[in-house]
Amino acid sequence: MAISKEEVSAFLTAEFPQSKCVVEEVGNGRAIVSHHVGLDELRPGGTVSGPVLMGIADVALYVAILGEIGIVPLAVTTSLTINFLRKPSASSRIIAICKLMKVGKSLAVGEVSLFSQGSDDPVAHVVGTYSIPPKREV
Amino acid sequence: MAISKEEVSAFLTAEFPQSKCVVEEVGNGRAIVSHHVGLDELRPGGTVSGPVLMGIADVALYVAILGEIGIVPLAVTTSLTINFLRKPSASSRIIAICKLMKVGKSLAVGEVSLFSQGSDDPVAHVVGTYSIPPKREV
Amino acid sequence: MAISKEEVSAFLTAEFPQSKCVVEEVGNGRAIVSHHVGLDELRPGGTVSGPVLMGIADVALYVAILGEIGIVPLAVTTSLTINFLRKPSASSRIIAICKLMKVGKSLAVGEVSLFSQGSDDPVAHVVGTYSIPPKREV
Amino acid sequence: MAISKEEVSAFLTAEFPQSKCVVEEVGNGRAIVSHHVGLDELRPGGTVSGPVLMGIADVALYVAILGEIGIVPLAVTTSLTINFLRKPSASSRIIAICKLMKVGKSLAVGEVSLFSQGSDDPVAHVVGTYSIPPKREV
Repeated sequence: MAISKEEVSAFLTAEFPQSKCVVEEVGNGRAIVSHHVGLDELRPGGTVSGPVLMGIADVALYVAILGEIGIVPLAVTTSLTINFLRKPSASSRIIAICKLMKVGKSLAVGEVSLFSQGSDDPVAHVVGTYSIPPKREV
Repeated sequence: MAISKEEVSAFLTAEFPQSKCVVEEVGNGRAIVSHHVGLDELRPGGTVSGPVLMGIADVALYVAILGEIGIVPLAVTTSLTINFLRKPSASSRIIAICKLMKVGKSLAVGEVSLFSQGSDDPVAHVVGTYSIPPKREV
Repeated sequence: MAISKEEVSAFLTAEFPQSKCVVEEVGNGRAIVSHHVGLDELRPGGTVSGPVLMGIADVALYVAILGEIGIVPLAVTTSLTINFLRKPSASSRIIAICKLMKVGKSLAVGEVSLFSQGSDDPVAHVVGTYSIPPKREV
Repeated sequence: MAISKEEVSAFLTAEFPQSKCVVEEVGNGRAIVSHHVGLDELRPGGTVSGPVLMGIADVALYVAILGEIGIVPLAVTTSLTINFLRKPSASSRIIAICKLMKVGKSLAVGEVSLFSQGSDDPVAHVVGTYSIPPKREV
């Protein structure tokens, strides 16, 4: 059932053509995704916008889940809780590290820590839930 | 302390020039914000992307808080929980209705229901918390 | 499918014999539950303990869901987010008002506002999700 | 500022005399707390009740925060999100492992994984926020 970084990347590019997320790692219930920070991601004051961070975390969760259950286009986010912890750097990529806590028959739950590249202190933390369609073997 | 829709709109335009949110109402611990749905907001499959919904809810909360405490540029989101409830329409504006539950000295908490314009069933629900800077009279 | 307050109460008493929650209303996607506040519910300082508030909200959600789908013993909470808003009174019952936002095939989502009886300002707010077992007709 | 397991335990016993939580470890932004599972903690069906799990997680967060900022009786929970992941064992202690993600001037944020003793798969996961009173040096 394990799928490669390249397979997930190709799927993401097809399904989310506008996404700038780069899949760095996937497997063993984990995923690492990175994202460029440029003018589109910044708010006045030089901070990465909250919805951008949420979007990156959402992709990291999705990638980790695809890594477990295979390419399932119909998995959808059902809930997401984000805590903003520190001001992200305006000049560093965002790194999202996702760890799944449960992959059940109908629900998957994972957490994501987001960092400005080069720092060990998370800028935000996310817990999210995905609904998995009933017949995933098909 | 009450501020008008026009004052909040002018502030939002200055602080978030890239935001497409339109302030429809503000006052009495509430705010209504609407947002265009076009190619930038859609995912393949014709659904409004999750981070776009989160971003709209975040602005609705911010507008409602500004309506209570005045123009305070340093108020920042500290946490946000979103539940996705139904698939939004691809051809309707998103309407976000925010109701504050608490505006304390250092924290404000509110909830936001998001709708596709013309429907009574929410597409998503958000609870969010903002940190308010200590000296807000300045 | 609608069930009465008495039916839900009887079921709760059987399934949660230690619960002190009283079902005040159920129906139309809503429920109202109340709970005594006494020594068991208080912390030093005279405030109702957080887990007690969570438990009451959880029962209110459960009651509202049972009111929609009938007596389904296997519905279980999958997630719950609580925001504590004000210090509850040590001498008033807690009133929990639940409103469901979605009752889907496998998930139900609702929000609960908790009050000290006699006050209009909520002491806490909860959003919770229940997983509904696949064959609920049985 | 570091405080010992014994100091935190003594404070908890005084402030929460009814709590059955045992402080196993505290320090370095972490805490481990355990809790007996007996008739009071169980629901029919042999599962540990949700509010009991929330309460244990809340104490673990509190202990971890006290370990960082010293004995501060006025720190209060402002929000808590719990995801229920697996059915806990009816015959094992609950072990809660808390890791703080931020200890700021006015807010602390941490996550807690809850286990049935002897198992590596979490039964629940919590993210919680505490408000810290302004003058904590006093």
